[in-house]
Amino acid sequence: MRKILIVGAGKSTSVLIEYLLKKSDSENLQLQIADLVLENASKLAGDHPRAKAMALDIFKKEERQAAVQEADLVISMLPARFHIEVAKDCLNYGKNMVTASYVSDEMQELDEEVKKKGLVFMNEIGVDPGIDHMSAMQVIDRIRAKGGKMLLFESFTGGLVAPESDTNLWNYKFTWNPRNVVVAGQGGVAKFLQEGKFKYIPYNRLFRRTEFIEVKGYGKFEVYANRNSLKYKSVYGLDDVLTLYRGTIRRVGFSRAWNMFVQLGMTDDSYIMENSADMSYRDFTNSFLPYSPTDSVELKFRHNLKIDQDDIMWDKLLELDIFNPKKKVGLKNVTPAEILQKILMDKWTLSEEDKDMIVMYHKFGYELDGEKKQIDATMVHIGQDQIRTAMARTVGLPVAIAALKILNGTISTPGVQLPITKEVYDPILKELAGNGIVFKEEEKEYLGYNPFGEVGN
Amino acid sequence: MRKILIVGAGKSTSVLIEYLLKKSDSENLQLQIADLVLENASKLAGDHPRAKAMALDIFKKEERQAAVQEADLVISMLPARFHIEVAKDCLNYGKNMVTASYVSDEMQELDEEVKKKGLVFMNEIGVDPGIDHMSAMQVIDRIRAKGGKMLLFESFTGGLVAPESDTNLWNYKFTWNPRNVVVAGQGGVAKFLQEGKFKYIPYNRLFRRTEFIEVKGYGKFEVYANRNSLKYKSVYGLDDVLTLYRGTIRRVGFSRAWNMFVQLGMTDDSYIMENSADMSYRDFTNSFLPYSPTDSVELKFRHNLKIDQDDIMWDKLLELDIFNPKKKVGLKNVTPAEILQKILMDKWTLSEEDKDMIVMYHKFGYELDGEKKQIDATMVHIGQDQIRTAMARTVGLPVAIAALKILNGTISTPGVQLPITKEVYDPILKELAGNGIVFKEEEKEYLGYNPFGEVGN
Repeated sequence: MRKILIVGAGKSTSVLIEYLLKKSDSENLQLQIADLVLENASKLAGDHPRAKAMALDIFKKEERQAAVQEADLVISMLPARFHIEVAKDCLNYGKNMVTASYVSDEMQELDEEVKKKGLVFMNEIGVDPGIDHMSAMQVIDRIRAKGGKMLLFESFTGGLVAPESDTNLWNYKFTWNPRNVVVAGQGGVAKFLQEGKFKYIPYNRLFRRTEFIEVKGYGKFEVYANRNSLKYKSVYGLDDVLTLYRGTIRRVGFSRAWNMFVQLGMTDDSYIMENSADMSYRDFTNSFLPYSPTDSVELKFRHNLKIDQDDIMWDKLLELDIFNPKKKVGLKNVTPAEILQKILMDKWTLSEEDKDMIVMYHKFGYELDGEKKQIDATMVHIGQDQIRTAMARTVGLPVAIAALKILNGTISTPGVQLPITKEVYDPILKELAGNGIVFKEEEKEYLGYNPFGEVGN
Repeated sequence: MRKILIVGAGKSTSVLIEYLLKKSDSENLQLQIADLVLENASKLAGDHPRAKAMALDIFKKEERQAAVQEADLVISMLPARFHIEVAKDCLNYGKNMVTASYVSDEMQELDEEVKKKGLVFMNEIGVDPGIDHMSAMQVIDRIRAKGGKMLLFESFTGGLVAPESDTNLWNYKFTWNPRNVVVAGQGGVAKFLQEGKFKYIPYNRLFRRTEFIEVKGYGKFEVYANRNSLKYKSVYGLDDVLTLYRGTIRRVGFSRAWNMFVQLGMTDDSYIMENSADMSYRDFTNSFLPYSPTDSVELKFRHNLKIDQDDIMWDKLLELDIFNPKKKVGLKNVTPAEILQKILMDKWTLSEEDKDMIVMYHKFGYELDGEKKQIDATMVHIGQDQIRTAMARTVGLPVAIAALKILNGTISTPGVQLPITKEVYDPILKELAGNGIVFKEEEKEYLGYNPFGEVGN
């Protein structure tokens, strides 16, 4: 029997457990599911003979070390900042490890020792990061194998609501952590490369500098820039690339409307508002507008943000009820972002029947035999139900597949790893395709970075 | 002979030394002028028999302590963060101290011991903070002495260029530290009270939420909010006030134009730009605009910020030469804010003949005998020459006057002090008036916070 310890029974853990339990007889697996709250773990273990639930406080060193010691491989689904303690134990006791999170500096520092011990610590193997790495590197390596030279790489991902559940004016519902959506884009300038030029977008312009993409069968989307495009230069070996741009996908019109909140300061998470508990939604909105002895909050809002009476943006605001004088915030000592999150959760929470959707879009521009070419690759995945959401599946499945392949020695290159080598991405993408997570490729005319296809005159 | 140690021979030190030397015979003073660079100190000491220059590295404990020990009073004109070491020595050796800087937490912590030793550590006694405290508290105390109840306090200060030197489209030149102007408003939301309601302005809206004031003989000005209005509630004892708002004064139109830089991200001081040394001014500007294979930087700028061809904002940009492809930034590893500062210093540096101007404007709303009233107090002070600038005089004179009055025992209340008591502000304001720094008061109709005098209909 091979024991897998799964720490953290969060949203995408159920899909990965379902996958592993399905294979538990043929692969001879025993799952130990650990969570701070025993009940969370028990729900996922059910009464399956090959799954056991346990309560585990990862800050209790002895408990944690005992659990790690008994396992053959550890999957940490904890919040990213908590991986490191588990990782150190895995190193000590010689256990392989899998996480879906970005490699932290602390994790990277373990690389040498992990290699020495011949262990595999696979990270960034969810959806974004994860499937984006694998699907991009598969195409990039193929282009290079033919002798092509990369000129352009753009990559966009979005967690959205499925078309059949797209029932509000924002074309958006929360499909993952709402907080991340509210503070998205904060904490640093967005920095990227366009045709060899470094470009910078500050937060207050981020949602006005969007670009458009189209996905066959799903229509038009918009993209706003991520903070961290340039780091993919070294990760993907794109040192001579002219254009390098990563972004987040929303339905067209979302960003223009979201920008209203950014402009007013409603997404600010850096200070506590006075008297927040007693505030109505209307009071909250009015806090960001000048006092007037006569004018309504509505008129001040329109005037300040120059919104015409027939602009759909206005209807989006009304839909969220932000001018309601009766609804109370009811939260003590909170930031504007926390209040906005509450207001949005009233309207943007998925209902029982709602399905979510993951959209991923890559553009690969390259030169081959003196000719410039472009491949666009797209993936759309729609959730099955409230448990098997697109997000949970696209995060949980690659984690589970990777874990099993490491256990079986198919993935064996030691070190603190990302899924960017053929050894990793080929078998995992193949199995993801078998689970309905499929990329479609299309050859396009190479236009460089030229989103509107302009020519001068 | 009474010895005054003056540490730091900066811009406003010359005025304070001039004042003290003028009185040095009648008051029997000896000035010790200390600076890290001996030459700076020597220039100010000249060959006056009652002034001596010395080199002093305040980080060399023994040097510093020897200098403090010999003095009867210490004036620290160092950058604010360096006062504390000098202050601790003053405490040890029982010396009074004067600074023009905000009281830091560390300085405040000395209060009890300073009191125990019967010493006076007078702080915030420049112009802003300084003259603003004194002139405001004089009126507030007068209103209260009559039985009035404060309803509204608004206070604005600006360091500007004098009308006779107002020769550019921005109606602005650097009269103090340029860096502070470039990053003004960053580092936190602007928070204030209007008619009992807390209001918040994020940085990206700060320069669009201006208000107007008019000063007789000097025309119209605009004001943008300072970060820290609310702290004056406790400092001035304005706990029940309905409106509390502090701001910075500029000529009308400055903020709307400055906002272009804010919007594009040119004032960001949080990251280093790539290849900054080789960039032209045009490249710098283009970094904040989308790439286009065809469109000019000018058109992209206009389109992004929606500037009409006949808008004066455009002329302001051209005046600064920000589209020049030949002028090089020439600075390595710098932030956008540092580059913008360089570009502005090309155009906004005072010439030999230029004079500066300090404008201060207070509004006091109050209720007395059931009637609501308002007093507006204004001060305009114009510099005499490049040494005796309005800024240097309004900072240096109150410091010098306070130092002498502490030495003479006229100001004697012990502790870490601000100039907010009658004992301090009455004699100092009187002497400032004798030096041409005069407030004019006017009674106004009380309208509450209602800058445009609207009434509903």
